[in-house]
Amino acid sequence: MRKTLRYGMVGGDLNAFIGGVHRIAVNFDGRAQLVAGCFNPDMAANKECGQFYRLDEDRIYADYKEMAQKESEREDGIDFVSIVTPNFLHYQVAKEFLNHGINVLCEKPLSFEVGEAEELKALAEEKGLYFAVNYSYSGNNMVKEARELVKQGVIGDVINVNAEYLQEYLVDDIGKGDQKMVKLSSWRKDPKVAGISNCVGDIGTHIEHTVSYITGLKLKKVAAVLDNYGQPLDLNANILVEFDNGAHGVYSSSQVCVGHMNGLVVRIFGTEGAIEWVQENPNVLSVTLKGQPTQIYNRGMGYVSERSKEMNRLPSGHPEGLYEAFANIYKCYISTILKKVNGEEPAEGDLDFPTVDDGIAGVKFIHACVESSKNNAVWVEI
Amino acid sequence: MRKTLRYGMVGGDLNAFIGGVHRIAVNFDGRAQLVAGCFNPDMAANKECGQFYRLDEDRIYADYKEMAQKESEREDGIDFVSIVTPNFLHYQVAKEFLNHGINVLCEKPLSFEVGEAEELKALAEEKGLYFAVNYSYSGNNMVKEARELVKQGVIGDVINVNAEYLQEYLVDDIGKGDQKMVKLSSWRKDPKVAGISNCVGDIGTHIEHTVSYITGLKLKKVAAVLDNYGQPLDLNANILVEFDNGAHGVYSSSQVCVGHMNGLVVRIFGTEGAIEWVQENPNVLSVTLKGQPTQIYNRGMGYVSERSKEMNRLPSGHPEGLYEAFANIYKCYISTILKKVNGEEPAEGDLDFPTVDDGIAGVKFIHACVESSKNNAVWVEI
Amino acid sequence: MRKTLRYGMVGGDLNAFIGGVHRIAVNFDGRAQLVAGCFNPDMAANKECGQFYRLDEDRIYADYKEMAQKESEREDGIDFVSIVTPNFLHYQVAKEFLNHGINVLCEKPLSFEVGEAEELKALAEEKGLYFAVNYSYSGNNMVKEARELVKQGVIGDVINVNAEYLQEYLVDDIGKGDQKMVKLSSWRKDPKVAGISNCVGDIGTHIEHTVSYITGLKLKKVAAVLDNYGQPLDLNANILVEFDNGAHGVYSSSQVCVGHMNGLVVRIFGTEGAIEWVQENPNVLSVTLKGQPTQIYNRGMGYVSERSKEMNRLPSGHPEGLYEAFANIYKCYISTILKKVNGEEPAEGDLDFPTVDDGIAGVKFIHACVESSKNNAVWVEI
Amino acid sequence: MRKTLRYGMVGGDLNAFIGGVHRIAVNFDGRAQLVAGCFNPDMAANKECGQFYRLDEDRIYADYKEMAQKESEREDGIDFVSIVTPNFLHYQVAKEFLNHGINVLCEKPLSFEVGEAEELKALAEEKGLYFAVNYSYSGNNMVKEARELVKQGVIGDVINVNAEYLQEYLVDDIGKGDQKMVKLSSWRKDPKVAGISNCVGDIGTHIEHTVSYITGLKLKKVAAVLDNYGQPLDLNANILVEFDNGAHGVYSSSQVCVGHMNGLVVRIFGTEGAIEWVQENPNVLSVTLKGQPTQIYNRGMGYVSERSKEMNRLPSGHPEGLYEAFANIYKCYISTILKKVNGEEPAEGDLDFPTVDDGIAGVKFIHACVESSKNNAVWVEI
Ligand SMILES: NC(=O)c1ccc[n+]([C@@H]2O[C@H](COP(=O)([O-])OP(=O)(O)OC[C@H]3O[C@@H](n4cnc5c(N)ncnc54)[C@H](O)[C@@H]3O)[C@@H](O)[C@H]2O)c1
Ligand SMILES: NC(=O)c1ccc[n+]([C@@H]2O[C@H](COP(=O)([O-])OP(=O)(O)OC[C@H]3O[C@@H](n4cnc5c(N)ncnc54)[C@H](O)[C@@H]3O)[C@@H](O)[C@H]2O)c1
Ligand SMILES: NC(=O)c1ccc[n+]([C@@H]2O[C@H](COP(=O)([O-])OP(=O)(O)OC[C@H]3O[C@@H](n4cnc5c(N)ncnc54)[C@H](O)[C@@H]3O)[C@@H](O)[C@H]2O)c1
Ligand SMILES: NC(=O)c1ccc[n+]([C@@H]2O[C@H](COP(=O)([O-])OP(=O)(O)OC[C@H]3O[C@@H](n4cnc5c(N)ncnc54)[C@H](O)[C@@H]3O)[C@@H](O)[C@H]2O)c1
Repeated sequence: MRKTLRYGMVGGDLNAFIGGVHRIAVNFDGRAQLVAGCFNPDMAANKECGQFYRLDEDRIYADYKEMAQKESEREDGIDFVSIVTPNFLHYQVAKEFLNHGINVLCEKPLSFEVGEAEELKALAEEKGLYFAVNYSYSGNNMVKEARELVKQGVIGDVINVNAEYLQEYLVDDIGKGDQKMVKLSSWRKDPKVAGISNCVGDIGTHIEHTVSYITGLKLKKVAAVLDNYGQPLDLNANILVEFDNGAHGVYSSSQVCVGHMNGLVVRIFGTEGAIEWVQENPNVLSVTLKGQPTQIYNRGMGYVSERSKEMNRLPSGHPEGLYEAFANIYKCYISTILKKVNGEEPAEGDLDFPTVDDGIAGVKFIHACVESSKNNAVWVEI
Repeated sequence: MRKTLRYGMVGGDLNAFIGGVHRIAVNFDGRAQLVAGCFNPDMAANKECGQFYRLDEDRIYADYKEMAQKESEREDGIDFVSIVTPNFLHYQVAKEFLNHGINVLCEKPLSFEVGEAEELKALAEEKGLYFAVNYSYSGNNMVKEARELVKQGVIGDVINVNAEYLQEYLVDDIGKGDQKMVKLSSWRKDPKVAGISNCVGDIGTHIEHTVSYITGLKLKKVAAVLDNYGQPLDLNANILVEFDNGAHGVYSSSQVCVGHMNGLVVRIFGTEGAIEWVQENPNVLSVTLKGQPTQIYNRGMGYVSERSKEMNRLPSGHPEGLYEAFANIYKCYISTILKKVNGEEPAEGDLDFPTVDDGIAGVKFIHACVESSKNNAVWVEI
Repeated sequence: MRKTLRYGMVGGDLNAFIGGVHRIAVNFDGRAQLVAGCFNPDMAANKECGQFYRLDEDRIYADYKEMAQKESEREDGIDFVSIVTPNFLHYQVAKEFLNHGINVLCEKPLSFEVGEAEELKALAEEKGLYFAVNYSYSGNNMVKEARELVKQGVIGDVINVNAEYLQEYLVDDIGKGDQKMVKLSSWRKDPKVAGISNCVGDIGTHIEHTVSYITGLKLKKVAAVLDNYGQPLDLNANILVEFDNGAHGVYSSSQVCVGHMNGLVVRIFGTEGAIEWVQENPNVLSVTLKGQPTQIYNRGMGYVSERSKEMNRLPSGHPEGLYEAFANIYKCYISTILKKVNGEEPAEGDLDFPTVDDGIAGVKFIHACVESSKNNAVWVEI
Repeated sequence: MRKTLRYGMVGGDLNAFIGGVHRIAVNFDGRAQLVAGCFNPDMAANKECGQFYRLDEDRIYADYKEMAQKESEREDGIDFVSIVTPNFLHYQVAKEFLNHGINVLCEKPLSFEVGEAEELKALAEEKGLYFAVNYSYSGNNMVKEARELVKQGVIGDVINVNAEYLQEYLVDDIGKGDQKMVKLSSWRKDPKVAGISNCVGDIGTHIEHTVSYITGLKLKKVAAVLDNYGQPLDLNANILVEFDNGAHGVYSSSQVCVGHMNGLVVRIFGTEGAIEWVQENPNVLSVTLKGQPTQIYNRGMGYVSERSKEMNRLPSGHPEGLYEAFANIYKCYISTILKKVNGEEPAEGDLDFPTVDDGIAGVKFIHACVESSKNNAVWVEI
């Protein structure tokens, strides 16, 4: 019985943002080893990265297609690939690996077009592969706790949702700017690389997933106003939403809201209670039963759900952060693949990672927002 | 030269909510005395209230019309009247006093119909009277500070607004309820007394005013989704807004959001900075310049604006609350009327109270929201 | 039966800090009227103040002794006097009014010497008078709620206390200063006017009272380090305390802690739970039962104690502040005196104001801290 | 030139708390590999752990002495050892490895006796070895930022310190208990394993180090009250402190303070400003200049110091937590050892880890507190 997996990575050289987070996250549980990669089309940067991780020279690939091909041919080939390139490559890279029978964990947004995302789903099913999409915030322990509380009926029926993801770092694209914030890669502003949306595609889509993960609800339609402020893509979005249970809500997503760094905040209101989670202080969860004092749940305490306990890493008060959220996504995904390679059936808890279905929902959401905004904020069905 | 004023009150008996707040607020500066009133159509309650305040028996009126008439005839008649009845009476009572040449401070929302509000404005102008509408949150010292900062250009041009006013107390109208919250008068849910809206009319309109007071912007249009959850009037609203400068934003107003008592929160985002004010902790203001740490301004400190200092009552760290906000509205209004009765010109600072124009804006906002919601959240011009 | 009282004031002219707060506070419930005063030894300022409040000219007294004498001789003389002068006058003014049979509400600290405070107590008892000492923070609604919770045993036995009262405004007395904070009267730094302590006497003593009010415990001994930083009196104090039940704790009091305006924070830890109250955000109370999530109690909600409800003024979420705390002290004190003048027995709730006994405890505390600090922080019994 | 190190571990099997944190922390930067260990005296648990990490069978040692011996003899022996056993073993294990010429990173508290700690220092110096003591909170990025700000003189001279480390998890040792908190290993309450103190030794000592790290000040003396509540060792401590610059302060350390999970809070007050850091929300730092608004510094922003930038891992708003603090300690320690093995001189930034001197200071602090408490809280020099 295998106890560990081998994995490869596409994208994420030593200077990239998210690739390194993935690698550290995988290391938390020590059940998968990086053995192959194509980290950068530039071979020097690619090699530098591969050597840092002591990969065999012949598994530092110049090209992801070659990588898919070669790895699928090896006996000790990778069990899954992590795709951490800019958006425009997700679809084609994922497809390539699926076609070669390799499980895929891909960054969000899954693809440019809804059809592409659906194609990937069909392909994964056809090949019997597990396809995760890295909506990483649902990896947070207290997001899982929120989901459990909703499932248990603690807040009753969801009647209203108010969620936001606010950042500041692009405000200089409209202001008189010499702001000195550290910025993410600027490909996000380029339609050819990022797709039809910057702000909604990069962060708004995290709102959509996190809310849907917690509530179990699906979006029915959106009415969105996106602001480009003279840029090719949107930097700001205010979005009315309607869920399949008839409840309404509002999502705000922005890269120009001064004072907010990475401000994902989710508030779910129900007939019997409400829940609030704030990503920048992720170890607590506010839970209020109607007519009662707000309760501040702390990760790691005896009163949290079994699921939250299972996924806990550190004692209460010892802060977990972004890496742990990613590590939790990988924990479940790797458990699933491990069971698969060992011929076992993954348990419900193992399957607790965002899938290609979540990826499709995300792409649909982005498209619906952009379309609505182009049509004077008319409701667009999802 | 007169140093104090005489005023009367319509509505606000000893069991009412807001009338008592007005009376205490007036007392803060000791420059106006309650001398006449019609506090309740029920004469027993009316008398009880008048006697508590040691009014002359003949100035405890059974009827507001009689009161307007008699007071206008007395040499020592009231200088202004405060109208603190349920909504449906505002227009008719205000009109009566204006017609008798008496200045009016009226509770919000100003009237049921936009035409009525405009009629009141015309009448006040014709008669040369001062008409205040009690959008009391703009009386808060740190709301004034926010306005000064925006005026000074500290946050640059406003590009996005995110504001909300969330309450919990009506959640039992949809939940399985034995919640034991203290509740406001239930006339708010009755269209005949409250008008075409409950939630937007009672609290949403405070968002509209507070934002407009701070930013100096006017609303151009709204796209609103109101939720009635089977009740005659709305209990929840999510509203996209567009301002006259082209900026967008979102307002959320609710009486069913568990965990929120009286949660007016205003966040104004500009090209150079942002401001956040939270009514439940009103003595501080969050101010962020782009790329800089958020600063927590404290009321009463040396660094606040001259205007904030002028309107300050207590040293920093000694909390002012709701009464002081009301007292500040009255402070300005009474200064204005005092100057008027003494033949002087009110200064800019004296005129810093919400007027009939704000009242009109509020009624227009309510109508636009209701109309939009009835038409599938289509944009409605204001 | 009398429904209202008459009161006089010593100290507190129009430029003073706390006298005006008292007058507004009394007005909240409208059951006592200011009819006499000696607001300032300077007659111009004295008159200006008296006239502002429309006092009869012959009741604006040049001298508090004359005032005590004359008021005691009038049939419509004052029912009680509020003493709001700097500290050195409290004892002599209080004594004068007691000697003339007039009830006294006096500011803290009650006197310079413990013996003086005890003398006042004896005198009040002898004369059958009610003597309140204005430890105003126990007037806060949520401080009362805290006391109820402790009484009900919710937090078990008190085992540790951590409380502080931190201010910034005197830091320039030690720093290189052009700080522009609004400052309180500088007599606080003068031993002849303030007494043997500045920081402990002005604010530390509020910690002592508030903790004792909430817990019902008495201090047994203190070990204190006071820092004068080259000034005649202390500006900073760190104090170990031991209570009569054997529990320990620590009090920190400072006028040189940058970032703190009026930071009274009280945390009471028990065997079964804990309570935290923060004066600058006074409408909430943090309550934690061991092993459970922290609960944020909101003033005005259905779940608070009967006592908290009785003393409530505004619906939940509508902030009460400093004035209301003072108004609550007066509410109880005036109820007590009203019952007295009407020959009734005050109820337990009426008597819920700090008395001369609390005043004595405060003076003892100040003396013990100063003595301990002079003796190398040795324990000093109280 | 070597790019990576080999390390071993004593203690920290798969069920231990802190050993696993160390291993994950080392992995963040990928520059050291675990190759040897003695994780548990029980051989089954020891093997299980070693195998999980794929160690060579002959490097899973039954005994730490054997491990020190064998590793020192191998050509590819470990470059350093991490000691993560309960306290009583630190001294002897560390001594053994030093004696065999192996660099040591040891958990705190360093030893039972001051003399032992000093002996370790002398031995390390004699052997030319680097000795780190894992006061992990100084690994936090914003603690480093605090230290930089103090160094730059931003808060002027330190005049007062208020710091605490409060936990709840042992309250049942005194209450009527069925609290369901997750608890740390109970050896902490056993004098034979933990040493002369539980609460001060386990967490109070972190306060001492963190304050000294930030301020650069050394403790001169302490006056402490420790509460055992009938247990063999202390569960609660309130401690007056005096620094070498004459400033005073207070430290509170407790394992029985309900509502606090892992509440290390450090507040440093200076003549020109103040700084506050809260471990449970570690990515921000409150900085106030006197007379100015409090500023909330965010890790990862452009305005932080060069040092903070060097040690940054994630963009602002993406929370780092406990693992990253440990990873930062290792980052510096490993950089130092790498330079050493390559014959280079470590830079100032490399040496930014707590050393055996900090370990000695910690043991002295614990002893002084215990001695003071036994002698009625008399001042004890350090
Ligand atoms: N889940 C999250 O929270 C989260 C956070 C950040 C980024 N992301 C997603 O991760 C992806 C990467 O974002 P990032 O911020 O790390 O971007 P980045 O620009 O920092 O890194 C992109 C990496 O992809 C590599 N790359 C580009 N083209 C390649 C090719 N043809 N073959 C191999 N490698 C190639 C680049 O060399 C670079 O190393 C994006 O899709 C983004 O949306 C997700
Ligand atoms: N500005 C604010 O923040 C704020 C807050 C609360 C209420 N309000 C407004 O104040 C008004 C009153 O609200 P409330 O909560 O105090 O209501 P309430 O029901 O508590 O009090 C209404 C009062 O009006 C009196 N009244 C009714 N009909 C009357 C008549 N014909 N003549 C004289 N008196 C009459 C009633 O007797 C009662 O005393 C409403 O318009 C509400 O929107 C504003
Ligand atoms: N309970 C609280 O929270 C609180 C808050 C602030 C002040 N205080 C206490 O209130 C008292 C006054 O403090 P303050 O800040 O208002 O001081 P202040 O200096 O602002 O006012 C003192 C007033 O006393 C008057 N006065 C002085 N000598 C007098 C005399 N012989 N006869 C009549 N009036 C005289 C002065 O003219 C002035 O009006 C102090 O004892 C202080 O400790 C208590
Ligand atoms: N820096 C920090 O923040 C921090 C946090 C927690 C613990 N610690 C310190 O870490 C140390 C360990 O604490 P813990 O909570 O992990 O304890 P723990 O009881 O969870 O783990 C102790 C480990 O030591 C092993 N051990 C015991 N005797 C051994 C021996 N003779 N040889 C080899 N291994 C042996 C045990 O098998 C166990 O795996 C303590 O000194 C503690 O003070 C520091």
